Amino acid sequence: MSKILIKNGILLPMEKSLADAGDLYYQGGLFIDGNKIRAVGDIPADWRPDTVIDAAGKVVMPGFVNCHTHAAMTLLRSFADDLPLMQWLEEKIWPLEANLTGDDVYWGTMLAAREMIAGGTTTFADMYFFMDDAAKAVRDSGIRASLSRGMVGMAPNGTHALNESRELVENWQGQANGRITTMLGPHAPYTCPPEYLQKVMKLAEELGTGIHIHVAETKQEVEEITKNYGKTPVKHLAAQGLFNFPVLAAHCVHVDSEEISILANNDVKVVHNPESNMKLASGIAPVPEMLSAGINVALGTDGASSNNNLDMMEEMRSAALLHKVNKEDPTVICSYQALEMATKFGGQALGLPVGVLAPGMKADVILLDFQKPHLYPLHDVPAHVVYAAQAGDVDTVVINGKIVMEQGKVAAIDDEKLFREIRDRAVRLTRPSQ
Amino acid sequence: MSKILIKNGILLPMEKSLADAGDLYYQGGLFIDGNKIRAVGDIPADWRPDTVIDAAGKVVMPGFVNCHTHAAMTLLRSFADDLPLMQWLEEKIWPLEANLTGDDVYWGTMLAAREMIAGGTTTFADMYFFMDDAAKAVRDSGIRASLSRGMVGMAPNGTHALNESRELVENWQGQANGRITTMLGPHAPYTCPPEYLQKVMKLAEELGTGIHIHVAETKQEVEEITKNYGKTPVKHLAAQGLFNFPVLAAHCVHVDSEEISILANNDVKVVHNPESNMKLASGIAPVPEMLSAGINVALGTDGASSNNNLDMMEEMRSAALLHKVNKEDPTVICSYQALEMATKFGGQALGLPVGVLAPGMKADVILLDFQKPHLYPLHDVPAHVVYAAQAGDVDTVVINGKIVMEQGKVAAIDDEKLFREIRDRAVRLTRPSQ
Ligand SMILES: [Zn+2]
Ligand SMILES: [Zn+2]
Repeated sequence: MSKILIKNGILLPMEKSLADAGDLYYQGGLFIDGNKIRAVGDIPADWRPDTVIDAAGKVVMPGFVNCHTHAAMTLLRSFADDLPLMQWLEEKIWPLEANLTGDDVYWGTMLAAREMIAGGTTTFADMYFFMDDAAKAVRDSGIRASLSRGMVGMAPNGTHALNESRELVENWQGQANGRITTMLGPHAPYTCPPEYLQKVMKLAEELGTGIHIHVAETKQEVEEITKNYGKTPVKHLAAQGLFNFPVLAAHCVHVDSEEISILANNDVKVVHNPESNMKLASGIAPVPEMLSAGINVALGTDGASSNNNLDMMEEMRSAALLHKVNKEDPTVICSYQALEMATKFGGQALGLPVGVLAPGMKADVILLDFQKPHLYPLHDVPAHVVYAAQAGDVDTVVINGKIVMEQGKVAAIDDEKLFREIRDRAVRLTRPSQ
Repeated sequence: MSKILIKNGILLPMEKSLADAGDLYYQGGLFIDGNKIRAVGDIPADWRPDTVIDAAGKVVMPGFVNCHTHAAMTLLRSFADDLPLMQWLEEKIWPLEANLTGDDVYWGTMLAAREMIAGGTTTFADMYFFMDDAAKAVRDSGIRASLSRGMVGMAPNGTHALNESRELVENWQGQANGRITTMLGPHAPYTCPPEYLQKVMKLAEELGTGIHIHVAETKQEVEEITKNYGKTPVKHLAAQGLFNFPVLAAHCVHVDSEEISILANNDVKVVHNPESNMKLASGIAPVPEMLSAGINVALGTDGASSNNNLDMMEEMRSAALLHKVNKEDPTVICSYQALEMATKFGGQALGLPVGVLAPGMKADVILLDFQKPHLYPLHDVPAHVVYAAQAGDVDTVVINGKIVMEQGKVAAIDDEKLFREIRDRAVRLTRPSQ
């Protein structure tokens, strides 16, 4: 393992809270030893790095943590948009997904990893199928991921999906130099009936994993769960005992103040996906209220078919802007809070030592090139990153102590081959059957 | 004047409406002769260009038209954010603006032009002061602009501002090979009392110009105007006779259905600024309703201090996403409509032959590089541009028949000098007075 010194940069470590004293960003160095950060700020002059990165004019910060996506859905990017939800799912997304192969998921996940690395995302939480292939793409690309096999309890393959979940955990937990971790992924309360959720929890207890699930994404879901079980989704899941496990709850759009208390008291990690919720017209999650209640709210892009990219900078900006106009208050979700959701809170949501630049944390670090017209002048670094920067400003990406991207090139990925594979698979998948 | 052939690209001419038959995009060529487009699609083999641009793997479309900004406010980018509106204006923006010099406005406008060109914006509508300097920056940078001197009738310099407006029109209308046009810019109904508006209209009639004005941006404005004049802003301006002139009305956030009819019947051009309205928590303009009423709704970024960039791709995406979630309908503002607002409707709003690739139109053309991971696979071009692309994907920019940007470099602008000027001026402007 090598030693890397990143010098002369503007450090934005994301360790401090807004209430803390001291500067949120400052000029300094970062020393990486093996897959961990050893020092931040002043670096002793006698430490000898193998590699030196000059970050003059650049911002050095933790990589983004995309806490909810379905990576291989990049294959469906811009395949169907601006449609009513059920027509979109039934006529477009589900028929195409039914034809996906394991190889498709490998290449779709590889494309997602390529895009995410380019935009400064160093960790993602995935829920999909053919997860053995997804795991291989994570291994091969150099990104970090928390993987779960999406399970639809009502589907004919519900039991099979449980078995595949067990295999994913047994085969891949801790693999790829620790870059791969795993969770169980019951899709949602409306697709996983109580008896199935019980099986999932039994397995989670046996394997010692957390649970990644969609919760209260749409009004229809709330109505359906309330009709079937006499309780709203959050209360229903609480009654089932799900919150006795570490839970990563995607969306939580339609939750009232009582449910927010339940989520807070059970330390449920919430993932806000503003662009997906906007694009599918699902609604606006009460994020300021959840943050005030002390909930760890992370950010996610959701799949590329409802976004249509995996761009965490955009997601931060959309989160900050959406809640301001929704609450009619420009002070809601300031730039630093949006950054916390995209980094520190993401690491905490996944239980991983990432999302903060501090000694002992995993060395997942990105450099943003601020020598761009849209980033001049430099009055405020967090505001620039959230309100003015774009994914293309990411210049260098280090994951697990390894430089995976320099000057836009990802060493481990052959773009030409990747693009050819994706093009061919997209043509095959969308060709009308004879 | 030279002849340019852009070949092998995917043409997205924006000429068609959604209701028209035929493809919205297709493979083809574009021939530019002097400052105009001569042909789109099939180019006769015997036409001899001076310059050939190979657009293989790229999308060729009209440049974006940013219909409302205050360009030199780039100097205040990220200077003050996440604050209550009046505190932001009174403690931060106004004191700093009071110290701006003509040279500051030249360089601030130059930075804005540099950023806009990089992001594919080829025309902008500006309202600010020291407009002689702003016009020089437009001339020197190569961009196209419709310039207006912002006039605050209640200010001590109200009469002076009218004189400066006259000078701007007399000195600059049609200059820079026709790239500069002019309007009058009474700031808003709450800063320009009726007697002042009458003077503005008299001058507009004499000079034959249109009028660029902020209308119904905040609830407070509506309350104040209603209290003072017994009418809401749109009805007040209609009663004053303002709509007898071509009017570019920025914002129109708080307008009811009756006011929408008045705007439609008077062919008032509306400029929607979604990110500014979100960031300042001004509200959500009824854009779907205005489009349904037949109003020409264009898009703008507003100034960089309330955005914090001048990125029209982001603005399109925010417009499409915001109205979907606000109307609880994912079919509202589809990708092609967002594109129309950013191109064709922008040209129509300014009364300029831009925003569409068609013979006889001004040659304002941009190329987007689609050989990027976040733009694979290619199921749909408009959806990619609106929902997945970023400003950095703009590869080549042609304005008025001249290649102003290639491979990220703007020929007419020395970035090093520009950045140095901006850095020095930002330091001077924000240094606390002794
Ligand atoms: Zn999802
Ligand atoms: Zn404005």
